[in-house]
Amino acid sequence: MMDTPLTLLSILKRAKFLFPKNEIVSRGVNGIFRYTYGDFYKRTHKLAGALNLLGVKPGDRVATLAWNDHRHLEAYFAVPSMGAILHTINFRLSPEHLIYIINHAEDKIILVDETIVPVLEAIQDKLKTVKVYIILSDKKGATETKLRPAYYYEQLIEEENSGFQFSEDIKENDPAGMCFTSATTGNPKGVLYSHRGLFLHSMAIGLTDTLGLSERDSILPIVPMFHVNAWGLPFGATMFGSKQVLPGPAPTPKDLLNLMSEEKVTLSAGVPTIWLGVLKELDENKSNYDTSSIRGFICGGSAAPRGMIKAYEDRHNIQILHAYGMTETTPLVFASRLKNNLLNLSSEEQLNYKAKQGLIVPGIEMKVIGKNGEVKHDGKEMGELLLRGPWIASEYYNDERTKETFIDGWLHTGDVVTVDEEGYVQIVDRTKDLVKSGGEWISSVDLENALMTHEAVFEASVFGVAHPKWQERPIAVVVLKDDYREKTTKEALLGHLAKQFAKWWLPDDIIFVDEIPKTSVGKFLKRGLREKYQNYLLDKES
Amino acid sequence: MMDTPLTLLSILKRAKFLFPKNEIVSRGVNGIFRYTYGDFYKRTHKLAGALNLLGVKPGDRVATLAWNDHRHLEAYFAVPSMGAILHTINFRLSPEHLIYIINHAEDKIILVDETIVPVLEAIQDKLKTVKVYIILSDKKGATETKLRPAYYYEQLIEEENSGFQFSEDIKENDPAGMCFTSATTGNPKGVLYSHRGLFLHSMAIGLTDTLGLSERDSILPIVPMFHVNAWGLPFGATMFGSKQVLPGPAPTPKDLLNLMSEEKVTLSAGVPTIWLGVLKELDENKSNYDTSSIRGFICGGSAAPRGMIKAYEDRHNIQILHAYGMTETTPLVFASRLKNNLLNLSSEEQLNYKAKQGLIVPGIEMKVIGKNGEVKHDGKEMGELLLRGPWIASEYYNDERTKETFIDGWLHTGDVVTVDEEGYVQIVDRTKDLVKSGGEWISSVDLENALMTHEAVFEASVFGVAHPKWQERPIAVVVLKDDYREKTTKEALLGHLAKQFAKWWLPDDIIFVDEIPKTSVGKFLKRGLREKYQNYLLDKES
Repeated sequence: MMDTPLTLLSILKRAKFLFPKNEIVSRGVNGIFRYTYGDFYKRTHKLAGALNLLGVKPGDRVATLAWNDHRHLEAYFAVPSMGAILHTINFRLSPEHLIYIINHAEDKIILVDETIVPVLEAIQDKLKTVKVYIILSDKKGATETKLRPAYYYEQLIEEENSGFQFSEDIKENDPAGMCFTSATTGNPKGVLYSHRGLFLHSMAIGLTDTLGLSERDSILPIVPMFHVNAWGLPFGATMFGSKQVLPGPAPTPKDLLNLMSEEKVTLSAGVPTIWLGVLKELDENKSNYDTSSIRGFICGGSAAPRGMIKAYEDRHNIQILHAYGMTETTPLVFASRLKNNLLNLSSEEQLNYKAKQGLIVPGIEMKVIGKNGEVKHDGKEMGELLLRGPWIASEYYNDERTKETFIDGWLHTGDVVTVDEEGYVQIVDRTKDLVKSGGEWISSVDLENALMTHEAVFEASVFGVAHPKWQERPIAVVVLKDDYREKTTKEALLGHLAKQFAKWWLPDDIIFVDEIPKTSVGKFLKRGLREKYQNYLLDKES
Repeated sequence: MMDTPLTLLSILKRAKFLFPKNEIVSRGVNGIFRYTYGDFYKRTHKLAGALNLLGVKPGDRVATLAWNDHRHLEAYFAVPSMGAILHTINFRLSPEHLIYIINHAEDKIILVDETIVPVLEAIQDKLKTVKVYIILSDKKGATETKLRPAYYYEQLIEEENSGFQFSEDIKENDPAGMCFTSATTGNPKGVLYSHRGLFLHSMAIGLTDTLGLSERDSILPIVPMFHVNAWGLPFGATMFGSKQVLPGPAPTPKDLLNLMSEEKVTLSAGVPTIWLGVLKELDENKSNYDTSSIRGFICGGSAAPRGMIKAYEDRHNIQILHAYGMTETTPLVFASRLKNNLLNLSSEEQLNYKAKQGLIVPGIEMKVIGKNGEVKHDGKEMGELLLRGPWIASEYYNDERTKETFIDGWLHTGDVVTVDEEGYVQIVDRTKDLVKSGGEWISSVDLENALMTHEAVFEASVFGVAHPKWQERPIAVVVLKDDYREKTTKEALLGHLAKQFAKWWLPDDIIFVDEIPKTSVGKFLKRGLREKYQNYLLDKES
């Protein structure tokens, strides 16, 4: 067979050949911008020409601090197709982390949205490698910013007439993209994406049995384009010529539902908190929107609550497509689509499968390692998920922490999962949050979820603390709803849990608190809780 | 990203993990055999263990002369997963070509169906490299054949208990399969398929926008498993866990329709002559069959007649999925699926697109080179189709003819095509059959098809012959239907053509004959016609 490389350039060329009239729609500060893949192809070349004149060479890092819009999409293809590396940055990180990331990646040029410029102005002095700032805006002319040197994107595009052409020399294992993921402690860790990985991932999300991206789709990625390439949707959509609907700066649920109605969106993607917000708006103002074109909402990032999946189905006839991945996995690894033999089950039984993260996609291999080696596929035995495959990272970028996570050719995800008889995988915890009690494993997440189904509970977090006999035992901190304070006992909540769990799973204590500390992205800060309560049971016993 | 290889073994392992209960159904001389991917996985290991004991090493060629059945499918995975090469042989070739192919490939072991054993017995003395014959049959015990040494497949499987395990050492560019394609003159030419090519091709046929293979499908490949791996369907179906329905020895249209009815087939694949036969049976005995499960019949090998596509739609509510490929292309290159903007067209207008070979699949690149370089995409300008990509062959196996076909990194298909504004490709001729008249190109196929729509015409073949002024001019040989003989004039047929074609396209003469010579696979023997009539116009002028 021919030794032709799998590259993003081939995706770009395909879109221009087959789908030049298909639309890309982009919501910006001045309203909706609308153009075609044909126009997009031309502007992508102009952007690459401008970057070339600004000195970008193969292997250089070009960063973005940008929303999901058409200019960001142009950078998605222009930068890698020049042989350079597109480094998408989460602009909501702390200034310290932003400085670390930009310096560690040695970014040469930064493309920054006009609404995000102040974030960079505040740290500009600390950025050691950045040569040029390009402001993403409709404006042209002289820039109004303290960033130096800075140009308006549209000014560069307008002036570019070098007739730049992409070279065909890119090898499929060359890096194309880069993204940092936050670490439990310390600085974020960088992941490189290769052309091969991104190309294969694009094929994988076009499979009928995964997400089934198609030319007939109109795709709205809500997940940010700085977050694992918006789960690869911009690359996949371009490969298949799907209409792309990019929601721009800080879209509200109303904005998103209006875009879905007006652009006949068929497929959208976001994290559970996004979908909970959209659900609330739909419940309250259903008649304002037309969701008849929607074939699915992809939900990933963290587990989709079962109740939410059901609410969308029952009240709005919308299917939630549950998926799983990580920054290190490009990201798609699992997608929860019902197998043929499950189609005859009741809708409640089907929901049990839809609420799991799903089946492994073709191309990726998994192992689940529990206390005694590979776990049984019984939906119960827990183990850490290990992954291997052509779109799984092999290291962290110039980072000693590589050796903690990439071992013997496998990515150790740190996620604890079960695998059922049908092969559906469910995340039950993070390895570090799992409670190891007398040689047995207890899922803190399962206990938390069960506590939060009790009518009195507003929030609950479960974690392991030291125990003289059992090594670790779970305890829970609980915030009660206002109406239930002083009226709800520890015994009532333990009784509630006892209906679902074996006795040895039940927390040794439940502590009522006013608030649970959270991370910057709204997750419970379990590390902090564990530190605060580490001697709680030891002190109690003594 | 990790450097993990794309191999057939990973497909096999995925099927065993996720789809162990899904069915494989195989029609044999003793009726229907039915088992699961779980059983299939075990027997594949046993076959590999037996082949290993018989001395098969990585790189060895193991040939098959077999129908589409479960044992052939076991060989499809066992042989490549050992690192050996599966050489599928068309047992209908002439004895001379069979001898050439087997000796040229240096096949070490041949798996042969019991119904095909006489073919090999007749040529056994001429086979220089074959060490062992394995008879595919339900039988066990001592074999009844003149082939030596020979074993029954089931005897080997039953006795195998070595616990053979596949190695993980296979590289993705290692050869996995081999198939010979007939040449215009001389011996057949061999093509090697790599693990990478077959894996990527399997992904490609699972895309929603190509063939959309799915776990929910029940797939009946009628195209032989010796013909470009039954178009890759057995590999793709195993990757996705589709039910496989294998039709066994010499199925009739009745047999095929019964299988479709009973096994709830959703997708089938074959050449136009197969589908014409099935159509006839359906038209005559529709009430005998239940075709409600069918979502499509894939039609390739040669162009699907427009009337047939329409007949299936109108009379049986069955979609024909038109596709194109060659032995050299693994094979899928084009699939004719309607783009979003064509869905509002009338059914007649849509038929114009469905009757074309379709849109290029992701991963493959094309160029169409006409008289003046790359052709315009206007649906009219003709050029030779050139292809490049990871599942396109790069050479013929140990064959000097490689240099005629593989030039500057492109496969020169020898097919003349047009490309329309939407990117749909249509085959209009073979380069060697194109009539080159005064520097312009005339499609012999277009003229033939038009002639055959005339009520009086049974068969027609058009080809170019020498002309003193125009270099070449087309002439036609025509067989009239019995009722029209002696009643139909040359002028009537030319008048019929003049309604559709420019004057300079019309044949210089039409010659009525009783019969048109054909090749062994039923195509017009144009080379013979050209030789016979080469001086026809020169003689006429003088």
